[in-house]
Amino acid sequence: MSRDGPIRLALVGGGPGSFIGGVHRMAALLDGRFAIVAGAFSRDARKSRERGAAWGIDPARAHAGHGPLLTAEAVRRDGIEAVAIATPNASHALIAADALAAGLHVVCDKPMTATLEEALQLASAVRLASTVFALTYTYTGYPMVRAARAQVAAGALGAVRKVVVDYAQGWLATAIEGENRQAAWRTDPAEAGAGGCVGDIGVHAFQLAEYISGLRVESLCADLPRVVPGRQLDDDCNILLRFGGGAPGALIASQIATGERNALRLRVYGERASLEWSHEEPGLLRRHSPDGRSELLYAGGEAAGPDARSAARLPPGHPEGFIEAFATIYRDVADAICGDRRLVGGVLPGIDDGVRSMRFIDAAVRSHERRSWLTLEGS
Amino acid sequence: MSRDGPIRLALVGGGPGSFIGGVHRMAALLDGRFAIVAGAFSRDARKSRERGAAWGIDPARAHAGHGPLLTAEAVRRDGIEAVAIATPNASHALIAADALAAGLHVVCDKPMTATLEEALQLASAVRLASTVFALTYTYTGYPMVRAARAQVAAGALGAVRKVVVDYAQGWLATAIEGENRQAAWRTDPAEAGAGGCVGDIGVHAFQLAEYISGLRVESLCADLPRVVPGRQLDDDCNILLRFGGGAPGALIASQIATGERNALRLRVYGERASLEWSHEEPGLLRRHSPDGRSELLYAGGEAAGPDARSAARLPPGHPEGFIEAFATIYRDVADAICGDRRLVGGVLPGIDDGVRSMRFIDAAVRSHERRSWLTLEGS
Amino acid sequence: MSRDGPIRLALVGGGPGSFIGGVHRMAALLDGRFAIVAGAFSRDARKSRERGAAWGIDPARAHAGHGPLLTAEAVRRDGIEAVAIATPNASHALIAADALAAGLHVVCDKPMTATLEEALQLASAVRLASTVFALTYTYTGYPMVRAARAQVAAGALGAVRKVVVDYAQGWLATAIEGENRQAAWRTDPAEAGAGGCVGDIGVHAFQLAEYISGLRVESLCADLPRVVPGRQLDDDCNILLRFGGGAPGALIASQIATGERNALRLRVYGERASLEWSHEEPGLLRRHSPDGRSELLYAGGEAAGPDARSAARLPPGHPEGFIEAFATIYRDVADAICGDRRLVGGVLPGIDDGVRSMRFIDAAVRSHERRSWLTLEGS
Amino acid sequence: MSRDGPIRLALVGGGPGSFIGGVHRMAALLDGRFAIVAGAFSRDARKSRERGAAWGIDPARAHAGHGPLLTAEAVRRDGIEAVAIATPNASHALIAADALAAGLHVVCDKPMTATLEEALQLASAVRLASTVFALTYTYTGYPMVRAARAQVAAGALGAVRKVVVDYAQGWLATAIEGENRQAAWRTDPAEAGAGGCVGDIGVHAFQLAEYISGLRVESLCADLPRVVPGRQLDDDCNILLRFGGGAPGALIASQIATGERNALRLRVYGERASLEWSHEEPGLLRRHSPDGRSELLYAGGEAAGPDARSAARLPPGHPEGFIEAFATIYRDVADAICGDRRLVGGVLPGIDDGVRSMRFIDAAVRSHERRSWLTLEGS
Repeated sequence: MSRDGPIRLALVGGGPGSFIGGVHRMAALLDGRFAIVAGAFSRDARKSRERGAAWGIDPARAHAGHGPLLTAEAVRRDGIEAVAIATPNASHALIAADALAAGLHVVCDKPMTATLEEALQLASAVRLASTVFALTYTYTGYPMVRAARAQVAAGALGAVRKVVVDYAQGWLATAIEGENRQAAWRTDPAEAGAGGCVGDIGVHAFQLAEYISGLRVESLCADLPRVVPGRQLDDDCNILLRFGGGAPGALIASQIATGERNALRLRVYGERASLEWSHEEPGLLRRHSPDGRSELLYAGGEAAGPDARSAARLPPGHPEGFIEAFATIYRDVADAICGDRRLVGGVLPGIDDGVRSMRFIDAAVRSHERRSWLTLEGS
Repeated sequence: MSRDGPIRLALVGGGPGSFIGGVHRMAALLDGRFAIVAGAFSRDARKSRERGAAWGIDPARAHAGHGPLLTAEAVRRDGIEAVAIATPNASHALIAADALAAGLHVVCDKPMTATLEEALQLASAVRLASTVFALTYTYTGYPMVRAARAQVAAGALGAVRKVVVDYAQGWLATAIEGENRQAAWRTDPAEAGAGGCVGDIGVHAFQLAEYISGLRVESLCADLPRVVPGRQLDDDCNILLRFGGGAPGALIASQIATGERNALRLRVYGERASLEWSHEEPGLLRRHSPDGRSELLYAGGEAAGPDARSAARLPPGHPEGFIEAFATIYRDVADAICGDRRLVGGVLPGIDDGVRSMRFIDAAVRSHERRSWLTLEGS
Repeated sequence: MSRDGPIRLALVGGGPGSFIGGVHRMAALLDGRFAIVAGAFSRDARKSRERGAAWGIDPARAHAGHGPLLTAEAVRRDGIEAVAIATPNASHALIAADALAAGLHVVCDKPMTATLEEALQLASAVRLASTVFALTYTYTGYPMVRAARAQVAAGALGAVRKVVVDYAQGWLATAIEGENRQAAWRTDPAEAGAGGCVGDIGVHAFQLAEYISGLRVESLCADLPRVVPGRQLDDDCNILLRFGGGAPGALIASQIATGERNALRLRVYGERASLEWSHEEPGLLRRHSPDGRSELLYAGGEAAGPDARSAARLPPGHPEGFIEAFATIYRDVADAICGDRRLVGGVLPGIDDGVRSMRFIDAAVRSHERRSWLTLEGS
Repeated sequence: MSRDGPIRLALVGGGPGSFIGGVHRMAALLDGRFAIVAGAFSRDARKSRERGAAWGIDPARAHAGHGPLLTAEAVRRDGIEAVAIATPNASHALIAADALAAGLHVVCDKPMTATLEEALQLASAVRLASTVFALTYTYTGYPMVRAARAQVAAGALGAVRKVVVDYAQGWLATAIEGENRQAAWRTDPAEAGAGGCVGDIGVHAFQLAEYISGLRVESLCADLPRVVPGRQLDDDCNILLRFGGGAPGALIASQIATGERNALRLRVYGERASLEWSHEEPGLLRRHSPDGRSELLYAGGEAAGPDARSAARLPPGHPEGFIEAFATIYRDVADAICGDRRLVGGVLPGIDDGVRSMRFIDAAVRSHERRSWLTLEGS
């Protein structure tokens, strides 16, 4: 899995006002496996060049959109090998498809697309491509999320009986979409797609629930309120779940939970024990036993197991966070590109996770509209 | 609110294998406002006398049922003034009605009755009575629950926008109902009523949500699975809520959450801030603000406010727990008996809380059966 | 260990402005093993009668000092069997000696006496007496403190290598001794003895360190500052320790730690693992292992072991606190009175703990004055 | 503070078995302000080249010691501008002096040197140099450490009255120095200098105490045990402190605290409030008030203040950790190099912090040997 020099990456997105673009950049750089050599940081040529300059990118390689980027890079001997997509949802499908068509590897932010239809089309494109397609479901990069997944898979809990996942943010508790670019596109169906809160963070919760539990949601009943007056999309979501085999669950998410920062918490209850992971203490996995004993496993430690250890850079007691988790995804992408393709769809979320997530958003929106339980197609 | 000597109380329930009966006793004694002078601790005369003897009760006043107890006490000059009911749900209505008819004050455990019909009948009896009728919703006795209620009522959060309440236990994760009397009656519709988990702990969560938020649930959509094979009643429950005014909410409870002890956690999100209370750290109320600041208020402290201070016996840093919370309810009952009747239905749960709770259980069971949203009558 | 009816107890102390007197009362009553039938609640006859009346005590048995109390009770057929001492330190020795001489059992608050000399004299009196003498070192009544003691004794940590104990309060951060009776006597050498902070809470920390670790302090080097201007006694203390066998330790205590409530925390490090207990989460014992795994044991649970279980009244998840811990000491005293004398000096602190503690205070004060290390006599 | 392209940096250290070398690298790269273009990663030429190759360094610029590195770089037009020193302590002074003499900026790991004498000599060299000299006291890079420092400086606590700092690790609880290179040099006086635990982590605790409190230690009394048999240096340390003005304090550190990961915790008590920071939850600063209220400030949030915000890369709820804190120090170094020299000795530790730390180690070792209090020179 080694090669000479870093993988040449272009970033689409990351312009002024962007949040996640900068995270993609730090994450790609942290382990030295990627070099960002080009980009389309903004649709405005000047802004794209300026952002590129700030990041040490040759102005000639800072473009005003992904089309010119792909065209220009295609003719360079030292052209890009991979594209990272950190734009609003509605543009993901086209950029990803074009990049795949250009023979490039693709790292795409979540949710994969704006609609289920786009997701299914993109899935066809990915199937035809020989390059890597991966999704940056950030939380899957945390060592203790991987430890949890490994423990469930190894049967440490016995059969899983219930999954509760809760993701609370408060930053959209007031109508800041007028001044805040992040808020603006996330509350606009034209850019975000059919899901507001459910599409932005509910989808993280959904993906994580399936990722760790190994179960698949079969049916759901969703309530997707629009709490702040004037919103066109849900800004809160509460969803009853039933997994394959009948295990119940609940998914609660909110972006109007005043005072919450970014509190994602998952609990998986099995026959013999349960696991709890919270993003507020990400380096910790709690395992609760029926005899009045809980066990805390720490990232970087021996007891956390091999999956967690390989995802940690530092020994226990040296906190790693959001950037490192994101960087671990990039490291996995690099490993996948260098040959270990089995990572994709394993610890590294790929096209199937993307399609599942879009099915989830689609079903949640329809369930809400009908005020009834719905079955997820393809479950 | 003072009187000479303690209020003379009889306990119905509390026999061998009982859990909550002993709690009623310690709670009644802690502040010296009650003396337990008689009881019907078991339907078995010998067991009732033995338990009475262990608790220092005159054998002549330890009866084999509430009927003989009421009859015998009625003719004593030093007869009982109040009855505490700590039996399985199905017997509450009759005991309470008989005690009220005998002119006695009644302290009844939750849920108030086995069915909504019984609850409505009991409500008629309470309306006719001039004595006090109170329910031991334990969590309402915690100082910081009262602080939370007072803060919401004072508008500290602005309008309440969302309520999430979660109550997780794991003690019924295996089918222990064969050996464990507590488990046996709670999983038996004949003794517990129509709700299993929803009636035993879901009802605590429901009552607390309304108690603190000041809102009333208008409609709900419930999923009440029976997870452990062979159960006749739900042992897990997940419920979507809509409160008056449209605020969404979720209520999650479980008795098959392996490894959970007794984790009740409530979050109330308002326009300007949110509150969080957890039974795992009961002396603490968290208030989260949108500027990246949380405030922790501690029981017994000045900043907790007068409602919390009057419910605490000790200064901050001296933990009080479950028995003290229960004792605070008994103290309120004593104050109500001594004249402050406004406490009932205020900080002290009364017949209205009881009827509401039975409406909730009833609606949840029907919603589950129909797989649909339902409106709570009387909301 | 049973008997007919509760043990007849008198309380000395507990008058207006008292804190710990009321705790003694609730603790004695909680389990029904004691009845408070008499007292000397204040040196002022009227105040003593008033407090007695509020607590349901016959005015004829509410005296203005321990002398009249002992005299009057001695001639009653239903006279007291035991005395609880909850007065300022300087009066403990005389009251205890008189009560022992009257053939009564004695429950004494800490520190045992005002001076080491008094402690040694009292020890002689206790040796001659056939009744029970016990000290209310509150923290020894917590289930998880007992679990920790049992684990160390069973060798679960291997040899103990270090003990750190830290006790922080902030209530004396300002000179409140003018208005606050609690503060007044604790800052007055005539009532408190030679130690201020070291005698009031340092002594708790010291006793707990020895109680749990099973080691004895051999030498110490103390710094006992008087932080608030005008104080005659230390209001902060920081002490280096060396235990028998050479294990190092540190004891940090403060009553000027602004914003701290009552934060007692102990860590015991052994060769193979370490234990951590904090009064801020008293129902929890943490055990840390070198492989990046910590184990949390919860009071009331099976895994906590028999010592913890017998000290808990409720199942896990039902918090017990300060009053219950105090009540457990009273329950042990009742068991000791009823015949199980081995409890004293075992889980129940007795005269040896009292003498040790006074040696500690004495050595700390002298070490501070000399600015040097000192050996504890009798170690 | 901007310039074209990153600062050209060489790393001395970071070879096989190194821990902190890799952290320097990630930290330097994270924000793109530095490029590592050369190094002396090992004294073994082959190992140095191999490590360099793994990190994308031209083999011609990977040397077998800092001497050849400085010589070779001096003649390149694109030669290095700065040197980062991540070697064992005993080599710091010479490397730093040579680099300064070569006109380079220096980033040096802690403790600055092996002896106080070396520190004083290096201080002379720094005074003569016009380049930047900074020390990577990691914890000073955490946003909430900076918030704490800013709050104290702004008088938010009133006068500081006590400082307690505690740093517990367990990794040296067994004699692993035979197999573990990290352990080997830290327990060897020839490489580590006169302090073991006190020099490796006690010095972090000391620096942080002064950094946040703004006070300077005037005298101390140290106990520096060697707990694991055969050790030549202390592996545990417990120190009483007195700060200028008389405020007391305590510093407790250990590397034999079995089961502890890397638990650094600091509390600063002022007249009006206190602050608490713990490395186990680094994104959080606790402020405790005397009215039973604690305030939690979160990194990235508005309420944390400007110092914390400028040290954070992400909004609240997105954890940053050890690498980011280290990277913030590198970012400050870059800003200092680009002109803002006032940072050094302000938020960015410089030569004065280094000399202070060496005075502390020196005094602690002597105090331990003499079993007495000592005054720090130069305080």
